Amino acid sequence: MTLSELEKQIRSKKSFLCIGLDTDLDKIPSFLKGEADPIFAFNKAIIDATHSLCVAYKPNTAFYEAYGSEGWRSLEKTIAYLNPDIFTIADAKRGDIGNTSTRYAKAFFETMDFDALTVAPYMGRDSVEPFLEFEGKYTILLGLTSNPGAFDFQTREEAGGRLFEEVLRTASNYRHAERLMYVVGATKAEYLGDIRRIIPDAFLLIPGVGAQGGSLEEVCRYGLNEQVGLLINSSRGIIYASGERDFAEKAAQKALGLQTQMAKILADRGA
Amino acid sequence: MTLSELEKQIRSKKSFLCIGLDTDLDKIPSFLKGEADPIFAFNKAIIDATHSLCVAYKPNTAFYEAYGSEGWRSLEKTIAYLNPDIFTIADAKRGDIGNTSTRYAKAFFETMDFDALTVAPYMGRDSVEPFLEFEGKYTILLGLTSNPGAFDFQTREEAGGRLFEEVLRTASNYRHAERLMYVVGATKAEYLGDIRRIIPDAFLLIPGVGAQGGSLEEVCRYGLNEQVGLLINSSRGIIYASGERDFAEKAAQKALGLQTQMAKILADRGA
Repeated sequence: MTLSELEKQIRSKKSFLCIGLDTDLDKIPSFLKGEADPIFAFNKAIIDATHSLCVAYKPNTAFYEAYGSEGWRSLEKTIAYLNPDIFTIADAKRGDIGNTSTRYAKAFFETMDFDALTVAPYMGRDSVEPFLEFEGKYTILLGLTSNPGAFDFQTREEAGGRLFEEVLRTASNYRHAERLMYVVGATKAEYLGDIRRIIPDAFLLIPGVGAQGGSLEEVCRYGLNEQVGLLINSSRGIIYASGERDFAEKAAQKALGLQTQMAKILADRGA
Repeated sequence: MTLSELEKQIRSKKSFLCIGLDTDLDKIPSFLKGEADPIFAFNKAIIDATHSLCVAYKPNTAFYEAYGSEGWRSLEKTIAYLNPDIFTIADAKRGDIGNTSTRYAKAFFETMDFDALTVAPYMGRDSVEPFLEFEGKYTILLGLTSNPGAFDFQTREEAGGRLFEEVLRTASNYRHAERLMYVVGATKAEYLGDIRRIIPDAFLLIPGVGAQGGSLEEVCRYGLNEQVGLLINSSRGIIYASGERDFAEKAAQKALGLQTQMAKILADRGA
């Protein structure tokens, strides 16, 4: 799915919600455990109940890898079920030296056909650019993450500014930077003004609203741009809204709550 | 395998060689492609031919993920074949917020039972410490990597020094830092003196000797410590020494070449 198709969905669904499929066998309703593939059964029910309310889904690969090749198969079924109707993000935080990053890009952009992939910046240009070579695919670079550990290195002052600002500035000059998006945690909304000055046009994937304590209103105040330019992710707050037979219905209610707030925010700014 | 068992193997094999299993269907001998699982068949032959010459194997997950759940199964077979006789490293460069890092740790330390895992530092303390909770397992943090992009961020001057030095200093204070090792690229041997002043006792995993141009002698001059404290990785230079039926034999010759140099280095310092 292209960026303009994503933007079209944002306008028609009046939503910029991304739902994180962090599917954990210890947290899904116990009655699903009799299914041949409980993880996929859970995902399918969540997707069926919520796809009209969100514009993207984001499975985090850690939850699938924890179950080995079986888990990886559940992930393959999930992406096949999602394509091609909605924007899909593999939250994998990959990155390696050049030829190895190309293998990761193939894994997620070709073998599984995700639209986007999260990538870690520490190894620099030749670890990121191989992902950017893939036309019609988007690389979402970690900028400022939502966790407390973000203050260990990301916000450290360097000669040129804070490290995360340096990452954004440097990456904007990578080849095919127009295929870059960035992760910025909702728990760090106060930095969004500075971030928008560096990358006014890029799409931002914002985790940390809900369970981690970030505020939707605050993120939108500083983060929205002309094209909306935000994907707000919620994982646990939606998918584990109930541990009973009504889990999908309750997930849809939570998603509707966020979508309603988003529709109002878009209406207020005349979008 | 514990660190003291690894050190015992280093002394008995007179080797601190790690062989990288970056197994790529496009590069393995074509006669193997008739096998039910060509990737595992290749790995098994390489392991059989080289295990007396090295003390660790390091599959890089990118090469397996590129083939989806099939590739993941080849990786599972490879680790099962290696255990428990030799030190095993999953080169996966993972890292995420706390509860998600725990899922990655389970994937590699429990589901697959690797001894060690490479982890990226950008997200800080709560992204690394979940890995360190696993007793008898080792987390190999990216310090200074071997690729050109390392100069984008890792060597940038901060208030407290260069970023990679700050990463090493900060991580040494993480809970269970005694379970940390570090990746330091052989192509940056001139930094090893500074690195050894910060972390004199830690094991270093050194990629970049051979194909990437790093020198074994130079790395040893600055990097060896009392307990040896180095694992020198070679991947392509060994496993793709020949693309014909003699591939395993030729790989063993290349491994023997490195092991012979290592035995001499150890003898020269009376180890």
